[in-house]
Amino acid sequence: MSHRTVFFVSDQTGVTAETMGHSLLTQFGGLAFRQVTLPFISTIDKADEAVKRINATGVAEGVRPVIFSTLVQEPLREVLKRADALFLDFFDAFLTPLEAELKTRSSRTEGRAHGIADLGAYTLRINATNFAMANDDGSMNQDYDRADVILVGVSRSGKTPTCLYMALQYGIFAANYPLADEEFENSRLPSKLRQYQHKLYGLTIAPERLQQIRQERRPDSKYASAAQVAFEVRSAEALYSHYGIPYINTTECSIEEIASRIIERAQLERRLRP
Amino acid sequence: MSHRTVFFVSDQTGVTAETMGHSLLTQFGGLAFRQVTLPFISTIDKADEAVKRINATGVAEGVRPVIFSTLVQEPLREVLKRADALFLDFFDAFLTPLEAELKTRSSRTEGRAHGIADLGAYTLRINATNFAMANDDGSMNQDYDRADVILVGVSRSGKTPTCLYMALQYGIFAANYPLADEEFENSRLPSKLRQYQHKLYGLTIAPERLQQIRQERRPDSKYASAAQVAFEVRSAEALYSHYGIPYINTTECSIEEIASRIIERAQLERRLRP
Repeated sequence: MSHRTVFFVSDQTGVTAETMGHSLLTQFGGLAFRQVTLPFISTIDKADEAVKRINATGVAEGVRPVIFSTLVQEPLREVLKRADALFLDFFDAFLTPLEAELKTRSSRTEGRAHGIADLGAYTLRINATNFAMANDDGSMNQDYDRADVILVGVSRSGKTPTCLYMALQYGIFAANYPLADEEFENSRLPSKLRQYQHKLYGLTIAPERLQQIRQERRPDSKYASAAQVAFEVRSAEALYSHYGIPYINTTECSIEEIASRIIERAQLERRLRP
Repeated sequence: MSHRTVFFVSDQTGVTAETMGHSLLTQFGGLAFRQVTLPFISTIDKADEAVKRINATGVAEGVRPVIFSTLVQEPLREVLKRADALFLDFFDAFLTPLEAELKTRSSRTEGRAHGIADLGAYTLRINATNFAMANDDGSMNQDYDRADVILVGVSRSGKTPTCLYMALQYGIFAANYPLADEEFENSRLPSKLRQYQHKLYGLTIAPERLQQIRQERRPDSKYASAAQVAFEVRSAEALYSHYGIPYINTTECSIEEIASRIIERAQLERRLRP
């Protein structure tokens, strides 16, 4: 299948342009795209170079590239607009109506959307990340007093990446504790968890999918066997029911989806950067 | 200062709407905004409820809210458009020109931008995250053969969060190794690092900022003293020069910025979701 190249052009990290472009491209599932990020295009010279590269790509591939851009400065946008490509700029589209509504002219300065705009908020994300690391996998040095949420679930149900994502993206203090034989044998939560029961959120997963994940990790082990996986998933769900712990099935969910749903349902605060 | 409420409305996680809205709001630095995310607005009923909440907020605050929306389905957008608010929808603005350019009608299905569109690409992100955890802080179980990059730097220079971010966002396999007394005393890299010298990328940081961070962590310790911090930073930079290791100053940079710059300069592949 022939592909078309999509460029994410930004005067800063390119994260916003990538996110925006990616959201739109998922709406054209049948087409193949090659994705190239051009970050830190913050001078006219760099913008000229970007245009040359974009035009050369179009000529080589015989199809006009698409540009998703988040260039705040008008002069840089003007340069990119001259590329032989479909040019979609985010600030072009939204800054003017926003200025009218807010009755304020925007600063139109180089984007710092992903910069350290507020040291306090930024430090919070770093501290939350350190917290997630220190409170991963039921570590010895638990600090559940400070936790916003404690994820529980069997090994490889998605606890660790979800905690890290909640920390990095939303400054949420998320710990996690693995449910294993000890809990299943006596069908009880350990006492250190019971006292924080209101902070618990369970993860579950389809046994077939879990088996696939574990098989990749430890091929043909008891850990990856159908019987063991089925037993663990069934036992975990029984624990959730017994203690009334809310839980989510992660089988079809990405980290972002798992995190968003837990945040929504457990009414956690999304500590968005100001 | 009076504030205006901004709503991020999405039929899925809300991550795209938050990213887009946040980028725009940073251009209005003087104004105060209250940010509320309304994710999973995927039915007409939920959309009606969202409108009621938005209108009530406007009445209570005496100022029209702003809506940043990523609703793919036209009927849901139509409901939100009737709210008494400035309505900026991302798909509204960009889908039509994209369809014309691609000569394809988009699926206009519920957004799965942050879903598991491609299991292989998704597994890669999870594996990269596990790799970052297992190869954090010079852990014993190093697997530097598989690393795309190995960050080096003194304690609290930003190595861990940057590795985790590169893994979660870009599927990059990033390890990190802390430079400490052992390296500084003999001004040499350990042999296990020297054989991977082409993968090394250094972090440095202003001593004043590092002291502040360490002081928060271990108040009034030698670790947080001006002399120790200055010695470590100077020694680390000397090592970088001696071995020709590229490095970046993280003092004024967010995790996203550090990651983007390293990816750019070390020419790592951004494994964007397809």
